Amino acid sequence: MKIVILGSGNVATQLGVALKTSGNEILQVWSRNQGNAEALALKLSAGSLSNLTFLSPDADVYFIAVKDDAIPAVASGFNLKDKLLVHTSGTTGIEVLKNASTRTGVFYPLQTFSKNKAVDFSAVPIAVEGSSPEVSEILTRVGEQISGKVIIMDSRQRKASHVAAVFACNFSNHLYTLSKEILEGNGLDFDLIRPLIAETAGKIKEMEPEEAQTGPARREDSLTINRHLEFLQDNDRLKQLYRLFSESIIWKHRAE
Amino acid sequence: MKIVILGSGNVATQLGVALKTSGNEILQVWSRNQGNAEALALKLSAGSLSNLTFLSPDADVYFIAVKDDAIPAVASGFNLKDKLLVHTSGTTGIEVLKNASTRTGVFYPLQTFSKNKAVDFSAVPIAVEGSSPEVSEILTRVGEQISGKVIIMDSRQRKASHVAAVFACNFSNHLYTLSKEILEGNGLDFDLIRPLIAETAGKIKEMEPEEAQTGPARREDSLTINRHLEFLQDNDRLKQLYRLFSESIIWKHRAE
Repeated sequence: MKIVILGSGNVATQLGVALKTSGNEILQVWSRNQGNAEALALKLSAGSLSNLTFLSPDADVYFIAVKDDAIPAVASGFNLKDKLLVHTSGTTGIEVLKNASTRTGVFYPLQTFSKNKAVDFSAVPIAVEGSSPEVSEILTRVGEQISGKVIIMDSRQRKASHVAAVFACNFSNHLYTLSKEILEGNGLDFDLIRPLIAETAGKIKEMEPEEAQTGPARREDSLTINRHLEFLQDNDRLKQLYRLFSESIIWKHRAE
Repeated sequence: MKIVILGSGNVATQLGVALKTSGNEILQVWSRNQGNAEALALKLSAGSLSNLTFLSPDADVYFIAVKDDAIPAVASGFNLKDKLLVHTSGTTGIEVLKNASTRTGVFYPLQTFSKNKAVDFSAVPIAVEGSSPEVSEILTRVGEQISGKVIIMDSRQRKASHVAAVFACNFSNHLYTLSKEILEGNGLDFDLIRPLIAETAGKIKEMEPEEAQTGPARREDSLTINRHLEFLQDNDRLKQLYRLFSESIIWKHRAE
């Protein structure tokens, strides 16, 4: 298929590379910043532009991969009314595109993207939504070129999966950062905890998370919980998180 | 070496197995519950008992591996005053043992233990503290039999590493549980997020967590944050955590 990428950030880059690698032709890369458009276009052997009026009308799919709050502006500059226009946001509804084209969709890869780390798309679930069955089918086909798991989801389910991903991924990673802060504040190295992080996530490949739960809150070991809160007494941010998590773990466990 | 294990839970089991596998002799397993003592003793080809007065005086090290709040009771029942008595708690100071023996120590494996999943001890850091250099040396030697990483730590550092482990491990795992709750509440399967969990933790093998941070809070994308809070509006527990994490991620990033 012939594809245009609108955007030049992490998602645009990784998606562009995956689509090209699986045999599609990337016609153009657009970015508000011409330099960024050129840099990604070079990787994808595509043309580059920073003015939406010069978009090629020859692509089969136009992927918007920009920050959520920039989607409306890109959509309103899109003037190929019958062309398939798709965004890649977990949280934005499909309706944001409805004035831009008669054929719209969403193509949301459930993964965390960093610029410096290539992602193996074959293991990345892709949530697809189309304004019509024809669009859903095209996007499913594109998705299956790069991923082993394509799921049709409505906008509410997609938002739920994004929120779930924020909890499981972004917030977990922040816990690693806080853990590093605690260690280094006491003259200890973060390497100490790296095997534990691998083990904790590794368990989830086989186990359900509620079964894998361990620790003082799971045991309702209030002696240890209070010692930890005392240890954290000078840091309100950490103490508040510690308390909230402990309450939530106890609550969840009792509700099982 | 000759060893006695006082306790029969997850830590007692995994530690006992690791010590035996690396060539030590487990003389006895004590548990308040005779049935539990026997079950573990069977695995370790050891004797079993539920009365501390019948402890063998022939061991080189006596490991207490019981819940933190049960340590004082076990210590006060220990009547082999010159024998090396060691607990395995991250949060309890060495001084809890000081009336029980003249030679005391701490041997704390930094890992999450589940009964049903064997742990590869070679990758588990072990924090060691001794009441004297002689004790520290013995415990270091025992540690090195089962682990590639033995670190001498004082009680405050050990507590810090336990708190750090609770954040990085117990709380992350609870985030997986919450993520599952959100998915299933919207007719989606937790499998959807499993690759993401593996990828998120996998990054930390090579990257620093503050560099690996992604997501709406990291980008200070208030549009998405507000949409997520609105999505969570009926669940105070999740909303409070979402808000606290987002604030903390933004705070941390700005402080860098």
